[in-house]
Order: sequence, then C-alpha cells, then structure tokens
Amino acid sequence: MSETADNSADRPHYRHLEQARAQVIELLSRQAVERELLQRQGEVTRRQDVVSQLVERQHQAALETRLASFHPADIAFVLESLQPDARELAWSLVRSDRRGAVLLETSDNVRRALVAHLPPEEIAALVAPLESDDIADLVGSLPDEVGQEVLQRLDNADQAEVRSMLSFPEGSVGATMDMEFVAVREDASLEAVQRLLRRRKTLPPHTNQVFVVDRGNRLRGLLSLSQLILGDPEEPVSVQMNRDVVYFFTDDRMRDAVDAFERYDLLSAPVVNLHDQVVGRITVDTIVDEIQERASSEGLRQVGLSEEEDLFAPALKSAKNRWPWLGINLITAFVSSRVIGAFEPIIQVIVALAALMPIVASIGGNSGNQSVALVIRGLALNQLGPNQLWRMLEKELRIAGINGLLWGVILGLATILMYHDVALAVVIAVALVLNLITASLVGVCAPVLLHRFGRDPVMGSSIILTATTDSMGFFYFLGLAALFLV
Amino acid sequence: MSETADNSADRPHYRHLEQARAQVIELLSRQAVERELLQRQGEVTRRQDVVSQLVERQHQAALETRLASFHPADIAFVLESLQPDARELAWSLVRSDRRGAVLLETSDNVRRALVAHLPPEEIAALVAPLESDDIADLVGSLPDEVGQEVLQRLDNADQAEVRSMLSFPEGSVGATMDMEFVAVREDASLEAVQRLLRRRKTLPPHTNQVFVVDRGNRLRGLLSLSQLILGDPEEPVSVQMNRDVVYFFTDDRMRDAVDAFERYDLLSAPVVNLHDQVVGRITVDTIVDEIQERASSEGLRQVGLSEEEDLFAPALKSAKNRWPWLGINLITAFVSSRVIGAFEPIIQVIVALAALMPIVASIGGNSGNQSVALVIRGLALNQLGPNQLWRMLEKELRIAGINGLLWGVILGLATILMYHDVALAVVIAVALVLNLITASLVGVCAPVLLHRFGRDPVMGSSIILTATTDSMGFFYFLGLAALFLV
Repeated sequence: MSETADNSADRPHYRHLEQARAQVIELLSRQAVERELLQRQGEVTRRQDVVSQLVERQHQAALETRLASFHPADIAFVLESLQPDARELAWSLVRSDRRGAVLLETSDNVRRALVAHLPPEEIAALVAPLESDDIADLVGSLPDEVGQEVLQRLDNADQAEVRSMLSFPEGSVGATMDMEFVAVREDASLEAVQRLLRRRKTLPPHTNQVFVVDRGNRLRGLLSLSQLILGDPEEPVSVQMNRDVVYFFTDDRMRDAVDAFERYDLLSAPVVNLHDQVVGRITVDTIVDEIQERASSEGLRQVGLSEEEDLFAPALKSAKNRWPWLGINLITAFVSSRVIGAFEPIIQVIVALAALMPIVASIGGNSGNQSVALVIRGLALNQLGPNQLWRMLEKELRIAGINGLLWGVILGLATILMYHDVALAVVIAVALVLNLITASLVGVCAPVLLHRFGRDPVMGSSIILTATTDSMGFFYFLGLAALFLV
Repeated sequence: MSETADNSADRPHYRHLEQARAQVIELLSRQAVERELLQRQGEVTRRQDVVSQLVERQHQAALETRLASFHPADIAFVLESLQPDARELAWSLVRSDRRGAVLLETSDNVRRALVAHLPPEEIAALVAPLESDDIADLVGSLPDEVGQEVLQRLDNADQAEVRSMLSFPEGSVGATMDMEFVAVREDASLEAVQRLLRRRKTLPPHTNQVFVVDRGNRLRGLLSLSQLILGDPEEPVSVQMNRDVVYFFTDDRMRDAVDAFERYDLLSAPVVNLHDQVVGRITVDTIVDEIQERASSEGLRQVGLSEEEDLFAPALKSAKNRWPWLGINLITAFVSSRVIGAFEPIIQVIVALAALMPIVASIGGNSGNQSVALVIRGLALNQLGPNQLWRMLEKELRIAGINGLLWGVILGLATILMYHDVALAVVIAVALVLNLITASLVGVCAPVLLHRFGRDPVMGSSIILTATTDSMGFFYFLGLAALFLV
C-alpha cells in the first residue's frame, strides 16, 4: 500500500488524482462553512477573530500550495464541484498566471460565474497568454459586451486572429480549429525539416505530423513525426509523405469531423480554406471534448434542458430553465384530458374504463420510445438512408403488430380476471394493438421529420410521441368502448 | 465543382467519402433486389439468365474495385447499412485479406452475422494478420465455442497473448490495452534512441511517445517523439523525458481511463502491472471508440434496449428484445390502475376526476425526469460527492416547491374555467405540489441508489420514477378528492 502511495508523488496514477481532488473539495467546503459560521457569530467572537484568522490563513496557504500542484483540468473539476461560496474561496487561491488555463477547462456557466465580478481588463490579462483559438472559445462564452471589451484590450495580432475565428459559424470546423501548425515544403530533405523543427525549439501541442504545402500554401500531404524519424535523412519530404489525407474545409461541421476522426482513427487533420490553403488544424483532444460534451448533454436535451445548468445555480433560476418543457407538457396533458372529457358519459356508466385507460396509454408511450431511441441512434450514426428508413418503418410496424397481439392478449386476460367482462377485454386488447401501431409510426416518423427540418430529434421526439400515444390511447379505448359496450 | 471533385481522387475530403459510401450502398441494395427478382422469376426467364448473369458480374467487378479503394471503416459502415441479403453480397465482394480489418470495425451483432457461416479455420485465417488486442476483441465477441476453436488455430505466441488479454475482466484497461509499444532506457542518448527506432523500420500505430523503463522494465517516464526530434542528440533520455506521467494499472476501469484522457488531453498512456512494469499502452483512438459506443448506447439503455440491435435483424427477434421492458411497464401500469380502481366510487360521483387525473401524473413524471437527467449527468461526470448530493436534493426539492405552486395555480385556474368548481381546483393544485415533491425526491434518489448498488442508473431510473409519479399522482389527487369533495 505505502509503495503505491509513494508512486503518486512523482507519477500521478489516476486514482490518486481522484483522491487528491476529493480531499481538496472536502477541505474547501468545510472551510467555506466555517467561515460562514464565524461571520454569523460575528459580534460574539470578535475577540477570537485574530486567532481564527491566523488559523484560516494557514489552512489557505496549504490549500494554495496543493492547488498549485494540480493540473488546470483538476482545478476546474474542483471549482465545478463546489458550492458558490466555497468556489469563490477556491478561485481566490488559484495563482493568477494559471487562471486562464483553468477557465478554459470549466463549463460555460461556471466560467461566467467566475469572471462575473472581474473587470474586462483583468479578464483580458487572464486570457492573453492563451492561444487564439482558446481565447476565442472563452470570449465566445462571455456576455457580448464584456467579450467585446476584452477583445479590445488584446494586442492587435491576437485580436485579428480571435475575430477571424469568431466569424465562423458555431459548430463549424473553422470556429473550433487550432491556428498553430507546422508546414514544410515537399522538396525539403528530411534532415532540413529536422533542423527547421529544432530551430523552433517547441512544437504546437499534440503535433504528431507536419503539413506539407506548396509555394501557394496549398495542402500537398502529411509527414508524420515517426516518418520523419524513421526515414532516410537525405530523402526529400515528397518520398516519405502521405498523400492520402483526410482534411476539412473551414465550413465543414464539427460533427462530421468527429465522425471522420472516429472512423479513420486520426490524431490530427489539416483544415483548408476554399482555395485549398492550409489555415489550421483539428486535434483529437478537441474531438474528445466534443464527443463528451454532446454525450453528456443528450440526456439533458431529452428533458428540455438544452442549456447547461450549473449544479449550484439558485433554485429560482433553475426552476425557470424547466418551464418551457413543463409548459408544453401541461398543454399536451390538457389535450389528452379533453379527449377523456369527451367520453365522460360512458365513463360514468362503466367506471372500470377510468382505471384501465392509463395502461393503454402508458404501454403505447413506452413502446414508441423504444422506436424513437433506435431511430435517433440510427440518425446519429448516419445509418438511415431512404432505403433503410422504409425498411425500418416496416420492421417497427411489424414488431408493433407482434407485441400488440402478445401484450393485448395478456392485458385482455388480466381484464377478464379483474372485471369478468369479455367484451371489455376485447376492447382493451384491440385498443392496445391500435395504439402500439400508432406509437411505432410516430416513433419512427417524428425524429426523422424533426431531423429533416433541422430540429433536434433528441429534444422534441419524445414529447410528440407521448402526446400522441396518450391522446390516441385514450381515444381508441374510450371510443371503442362507446361503440361496442353500451 | 469539378475542381473539388478532382481533389477527392487523391485526397479524401470527408464529404466525398460520405457520398462514395452512399453510392455503393445504393448500388448494392439495388443489385440485391434485382437478384431476388430474377430468382423469383426463375422459371420464366431462364433463357435470359446468361445475359443477366454477365451484366451482374460486370456490376460486381466494378463494385469490388470500388470497395477495394475504401478504408476498412467505410466498408464496415456500408455493411452495417445494408439489409441481410445485400450485406452478404457485399461481404462476398470484400477481398479476403481485408476482411479481418473490416470485421474489427463492425458492431458485435453484424460481426456475428458475417462470420456465422464461416468455419473456425477460415475465421482464424481472417484474424491472424491482426494485432493480438484486436484478435482478442474479435474472439471475445464470438460465441464461446467458436472463439475457442479460432484461438486453437492461431500460432502459439499470438494464442498466449490473446488468452492473457481475454483473462482480464471486461471493461478493464488490461482487456483493452494494446500490447505493442516501444520502450527505451533512460541512460541512452537521444541519438541512440533514434538509431534504435530506425532499425525497427516501423513504429506501432499512433506512437506519439516511447516509454522510458529501467532494467526491470519498470516505468520511469515518457519521451515524446517531438522531444526526441527537438532535443540535443548527445543528451541522455533522462534529461529530456517527462517524469510527470499519467499511467494506468491493468485492473483499472476503462471509464476511468476515458476520464483521464479527456481531462489531461492525452494521446497515449502506459499500462503497468502490479510490479510497476510496463505491459501495454492505451491510445486515444480506443478512447474515442469507447466514448462513442457508450454515448450511442445511452439512449437505447434508457428504454431497456441494452443489447445492441442490428437494424435489420428479423422482426420477431427484435420484438423479443423489447419484452422485458414492456413487461415491467405493464406491471407498473397495473399498479397505478389498481390505485385508480380503489377510488372507482368517487369517480362515479365526480367523473371530471377521470379526465383530470392523468394531468397530475404526467407533469409529475416529466418534472421528475428532469431531475433524473441532471443526476445521471452529475454521476457520469463524477460531480456528486456526499456534500454535493445533499445540496442537490435540497435544491431539487426547492425547485419542485416553486414549480408546484406556479403550475398548481395555472392548473387550478384552468380547472375552474372548465368545471366551475373551486374545491376541485384546490384539490388538483395541492395534488400537483405533492406529486412534484415526490417526483424530485425519487428523481434524485433513484439514480443515486441504483448507482450505489452497482446498477445502471440510465436503465432503471426512469421506470422507477414514472411508476412512482403515476401511482402517487393518482393517489394524491383521488385521495384528496375522496376526503374533501364528497
């Protein structure tokens, strides 16, 4: 055990990092609470103030040292996990030269909270040491006026680069690319390239290959660092380089870049403008962040929470975030309620209908949501061409038929057991079959149509589906009952 | 336009790859359909057979050439998008020396379907050229007996490596790692390392750094290829190398590795055994696949479809896949139905209750699902320590209170408008507040408890939640009505 612990000192195994973060979070939370307690007791303990302040300062110095040894991403994690008061305390303990790097790793909401009280010139000082794509990323997440003021305080070269990046549409490769890259000519020898790199002293982070361009800066190929090391130093780049290159235009969508990186196992790829000139690169770390972000937001978008929500934002603000979704839900619930309302007379006669009707609606909704999930996945993986779509619809309808018969019979038998009424059992079984077929139809079509009209199928499909299966479930069941049971 | 098209010939821009894939899928589908038609017309058109077979063969030769120019991942994509008959046709057109690489890129289900009719010795021949971690991956996804037979047909060295990988638990770093890596000593000069690498002729794919080890093969640090190129060739590795290294043990979980890669922007990392000896490495392309896979399965797991489903599996098989989920759903629906059943007498008196009760249940379910989504995300991002958990529960309860009052008033007013009954309006408003509070309580606790007991919160939370909000929604509303309205 102690050996493992010793290791952590010089080589951070993941579990030790996790423990270290947890400890610091615990310490910071406790200190923030203590500080609040002290403030509340204010008058009473004024005499003890000097002592407690000394103790607090000692604790803080220890924490400061601790944080200084953390990777910026770990500090960001700590900040995200803390409640607002403890978070401010922690932020004040982060060395100012590391704050820019830390900001970069936090989520938009926490970032806004952290810089909310800082004047623009201080924000500008924080971000100045960063690369221009990172500055663009940060500035883009600030409120517009603040962002503009920060921009004006940067030096001219940075300002121009950042503005050019901000001019690309959100979600495009251009808006996300990294503008630092190394380009070489194809007639240079490998040795000359090695000399050139050595003169630069450092390479941009995540450089696994250099771009080969012609005189007009147009992309000709790629030379990986391993080709550079393994190849004969006398040979020209053109012999070793890779001509079979996956590249992107600035106006390509990042989601396509993500697909390509995943499919072809890329580590980095060049970005070109419309004249085929290299203007930047995309690296796999950006891709990993993109995928993670999209994955972690999907669950939220499904329930109408498209905006990232700070875990510790005030309750009223969070409550407001949820209103649109609940409002839409109230409306659709009212619609199904009106469907039921139209059949009140028959319910009064056969009150069992009231108890049974939610079953038809609920199974319809659940079955349809299975179709929705499959279609959304197919759309995300690009697997649903027109051909496959028809085939899928046909298959989902067939499944609905099979499942409708099976569960219809089970539900019918259960109804007979409970109410000793065969006609009622037949009505509920038929209503279930009809509702499952409706569910599969809507479950396939809703996400596809939303997708085709440029909407997010993850966000709207389930609402459309359950609105339909609820209303139609009630309608089929109560309607059939009205026709055949009285 | 034509210029862009020309580009695609030597440098595959992503969009052109997409188009090419779509074309081939279209062609293959059409050919499979034509073939089926010809077979059906069998007797009638026997005389035309010779001609049509010639035409078909010509088409197939063209397709074969086309497929041969594709990246294995693109071929896999084509196979996944095709219906079973067309898929078999396409598979028969893939050159046999590329089949192993293609199999590697397909999903488990499609892979099983593709090798289902092959004898083990042929499968062994297909996978033999692959790396041992890839072979382990493939063999692990085959039915047990087939996998064993394939293994026995590999040469001894491969067999030993594959068996050792298969012995690690699923989802561990050891089961996923790549066993090919380059290790050097810290007292070697950079020049000596360069010479060593050149003698190897090739480096393992995605090598961005070599591992520095001592005599006992224990990890000492990392030397990146760029450090190797930029550093003074005379200097020893120990001067240039990075000692501050994130590494993994073979029994670490892959999900922790994914977190670490994302957080620290890693491209590759060494894997060590309990004696700190380097035994393999994890590369970022594996991480990207892991994240993608988990992300694309989350939506499916939410609706109880944990097994990856082949888009074109037979309907009955797919229907069966969905039974457990629908069965559980039927049971919970019966429970809420029984809750309503208990109040049938009062419904008979005030039939408006039947129309209004689904509204209370539905808003409760939707509101609770928002809490569920937030908690699941917090769990996935590791942000919910005990401290944060209490804070979150408190906040969700507060939000439920705020939203309950707001939507309760709206729902109450709507009820007055529809039924002119103030007492009924008060009852429904109070029932809604109670149900929203229940929903937030269950919405936070269900995923946390499932997670703590080692279950998948994504799969079970929503069912537990809606079962509760339905039953309790009906119970609160009808119960209050029974108490105060008659």
